[in-house]
Amino acid sequence: MGKEREGHGWIKRVRPKITPPSLNDNTADVDRLLKGIRKDLQGEILFDFPMAAKIPNLLRESQYQVETFLFEDHGQWHLCGVIPASENNAFYGLAVDLGSSTIVVRLLDLSTGEPVDELSFHNPQIEIGSDILTRIHYASRKEGLRELQSMVRDRLNQKILSLCRKHGFQPLRIAGMVIAGNTTMTHLFLGLNPYWLCREPYIPALNTLPIIRAEELALNILPGAPVMVFPNVGSYFGGDLIAGVLASGMARREEVCLLVDVGTNAEVIIGNRDWLMACAGAAGPALEGGVANMGMMAGPGVIDKVTIDPETHEFHLRTIDNKPPVGICGSGLIDLAAHLFLTGMIDLRGKFVSSRCGGLLTEENSIRELVIVAREKSGTGKPLTLAQTDIDGLVRSKAAMFTILKTITNTVGIPFSAIRRFFVAGTFGSYIDPRSAITIGMIPDLPLETYVSLGNTSLEGATRGLLSREARQTTLAIRDQITYLELNVNQEFMNLFSAAKFIPHTDRGIFPSVQPY
Amino acid sequence: MGKEREGHGWIKRVRPKITPPSLNDNTADVDRLLKGIRKDLQGEILFDFPMAAKIPNLLRESQYQVETFLFEDHGQWHLCGVIPASENNAFYGLAVDLGSSTIVVRLLDLSTGEPVDELSFHNPQIEIGSDILTRIHYASRKEGLRELQSMVRDRLNQKILSLCRKHGFQPLRIAGMVIAGNTTMTHLFLGLNPYWLCREPYIPALNTLPIIRAEELALNILPGAPVMVFPNVGSYFGGDLIAGVLASGMARREEVCLLVDVGTNAEVIIGNRDWLMACAGAAGPALEGGVANMGMMAGPGVIDKVTIDPETHEFHLRTIDNKPPVGICGSGLIDLAAHLFLTGMIDLRGKFVSSRCGGLLTEENSIRELVIVAREKSGTGKPLTLAQTDIDGLVRSKAAMFTILKTITNTVGIPFSAIRRFFVAGTFGSYIDPRSAITIGMIPDLPLETYVSLGNTSLEGATRGLLSREARQTTLAIRDQITYLELNVNQEFMNLFSAAKFIPHTDRGIFPSVQPY
Repeated sequence: MGKEREGHGWIKRVRPKITPPSLNDNTADVDRLLKGIRKDLQGEILFDFPMAAKIPNLLRESQYQVETFLFEDHGQWHLCGVIPASENNAFYGLAVDLGSSTIVVRLLDLSTGEPVDELSFHNPQIEIGSDILTRIHYASRKEGLRELQSMVRDRLNQKILSLCRKHGFQPLRIAGMVIAGNTTMTHLFLGLNPYWLCREPYIPALNTLPIIRAEELALNILPGAPVMVFPNVGSYFGGDLIAGVLASGMARREEVCLLVDVGTNAEVIIGNRDWLMACAGAAGPALEGGVANMGMMAGPGVIDKVTIDPETHEFHLRTIDNKPPVGICGSGLIDLAAHLFLTGMIDLRGKFVSSRCGGLLTEENSIRELVIVAREKSGTGKPLTLAQTDIDGLVRSKAAMFTILKTITNTVGIPFSAIRRFFVAGTFGSYIDPRSAITIGMIPDLPLETYVSLGNTSLEGATRGLLSREARQTTLAIRDQITYLELNVNQEFMNLFSAAKFIPHTDRGIFPSVQPY
Repeated sequence: MGKEREGHGWIKRVRPKITPPSLNDNTADVDRLLKGIRKDLQGEILFDFPMAAKIPNLLRESQYQVETFLFEDHGQWHLCGVIPASENNAFYGLAVDLGSSTIVVRLLDLSTGEPVDELSFHNPQIEIGSDILTRIHYASRKEGLRELQSMVRDRLNQKILSLCRKHGFQPLRIAGMVIAGNTTMTHLFLGLNPYWLCREPYIPALNTLPIIRAEELALNILPGAPVMVFPNVGSYFGGDLIAGVLASGMARREEVCLLVDVGTNAEVIIGNRDWLMACAGAAGPALEGGVANMGMMAGPGVIDKVTIDPETHEFHLRTIDNKPPVGICGSGLIDLAAHLFLTGMIDLRGKFVSSRCGGLLTEENSIRELVIVAREKSGTGKPLTLAQTDIDGLVRSKAAMFTILKTITNTVGIPFSAIRRFFVAGTFGSYIDPRSAITIGMIPDLPLETYVSLGNTSLEGATRGLLSREARQTTLAIRDQITYLELNVNQEFMNLFSAAKFIPHTDRGIFPSVQPY
């Protein structure tokens, strides 16, 4: 793959053959180095002065045996690093998914384009606040922004160092980094004031970012290495989504595709190679495991799959790592709600049907709860229960999701049936059973093969941006092509939302495949 | 001139019309600014991240009324400054001649291209050593380089501030600077190690410099302002000479021209629009007023013009500012030697002829001296005398100069007579009387109108580089076009030198116009 990669990458390593100086060839040190590089790389090579100042000594100390790193930007090559040549044949890049809850780092060998390792960790800003608004407010405090920025940066630097140690190379050999995150995460990471992100008219500091040098962000890799941060479209539509569009390939397809990233916010992009329309709206925390009683994020012992026996009403639960159940994640909850509906244990309003629930239904402080896991089978020592309020929350979330989908397709004048590919992004998305999501009326009743789970598209998009010159250009094209639809919560939206607050919907005709047992 | 300048400048000011943000237009702050600029300036606009981070607050604080500064480099515009809009209509640039003795700063109004003011001051590095080698050695000390760099930078910053105060504008309104100096001065100014400049094989750190931002050099002007430093060809052929070639226009002429900058080193460039050959060689300090007894740099009371009455042998002296004579500068010395020769007071070897000098000739410690100014007419209270050793030094210098000219014309195979324009650069050069210089055999016996004094070509070249996009490009073309001739002091050179150590020359035939009285 080596040679082929050379043509596609925008970050390169060149080991120039340099003739040492003599009276017959008194070309200056830096010019001499550039001359050597140009034997391998055509065109003019730009460089920054501060780097140039260090080159003469380095050349002499290393007897003119050096490795150089370069990156392409706006059609020109930039020298971004010179280090003494070594036996080590590899150089690296990092793709980062900068999530508000979880940060994922993928290490790639840039000489082959192959992934080498991957790790993830909680975003340390959670300590300040798990929701984004808290962090934005915190940033307004004295030193608050700087503090939030350094929390992520310092942890990231630690993790980078651990990757370097594990694989036995110097951080200087990491010659590029690509980062995709939502608009707020991006602002905090870059130390940009997020104050205006959550205040009308919701203006980011930057939409399209230039290449930033690693040292400008105090990242512990090659100081001059290019850091590409995915651009955002608006306060509520960030680089993670642009990365998702890139990863899905929808901006190059002829057929109409839809990409949805389900989380606290539901972000939706619909379109094809000719047009892209996007919107985002609050879908409620229910879908991310934010349910009061037993909801939690995916982890060992968390229920991620549920079926209910139509005859016996017995619960069949699958837990992560097959550990005793400790809670339920979003995908499990959708399964659970779907099957409660199919078995008639909840009605079309999502309310428990006492006659069907039998002894599993309890009532405490006038809140009705359904026992899903009895105390003796639970991993927590307590029964796991689902409250009526939990289902209510889920119904609101799924109604919001469906309304958003309905609104954006209405806006572009396309029926659900015209969608050829319905991509679901996010780790969470990969666990959702589309059959269950259709059953509760969260997503349209399309053939199941329409639904494609893409996993972490933010990380995948960042990886493509790191490896491919073309992908980088496509990224900017996507950003320019997207029309952002501001979801005004008007009467029409509320009407659609009200109709979607039933399972699966007030209009059963649009969910023909949903048939209760 | 306003509109016309717009087309030529590579540093521009744009006052963008920016629509404040609204729910219908939630473009990010920086993107919004760039959109405003692009109404006035076509093409993509690049910017650095650190600058971008400051823009949102600035835009809001100034109610979106800002002025922006941009410069062009490699065919792309770079945003280099954003300041709140003000009533002041002007923005400025500085052209700097970075001499080892004297630094000259010219302030230009970049909106009109007109010079506003000019000042000069001694290079404070003289404190460390008046000659360049001392400074190079000093740079090897701990903190020596940094010290030399800050000496010039701090003084320059003081002077810039005084110019700003005098003309009533903020240093932030200086949006660009162009600097021309010799290779060592350039290295010291930039903090580049000059160690290898004076050691075989004499390698500069850089020949061609990228645009440097003012803040990277701690210059007290607009922090992001571009600083262009003239490129050098080699250790002994610096940016001041490239600036000279630019100022002379010789690189665009069809006819063969020669440019000489006379100083401690004589630097010579010969050529036309098709080719350029350059060399440099030690011409001795005599030409710069470095003569032991009465030599000094130009200043009040310094003799800069001399004639001797052929009949009475009376000296006619002109002094600067008509003050009582205190010494003699290089041009005066050349005049003096020429007239001493024409009157027969020195012979063709430059030795005093007792019979012709009469009572003016004294001898002390076996050194013969000629009284040029008697004690009672002197401004120093002592007689001003010319020693035999002074004339010997001048003869060596003029012989070196002539030999260099002969060598370079021989090398390119062109007779002196083919030279259509003989440009003399440098403040010193503007005082030299070509007639006298021919008489002593320092320069070839060409028609006097061939000799053109250009004054401070380094400053003039820097000015052109500051004002014109084309001149900047020409600068790089000149640098690429010049072939540097290493003057090997071989037998042939020594033979030419020996022949030139006579006044005007052993071969009188090549100086037909020189006729003693």
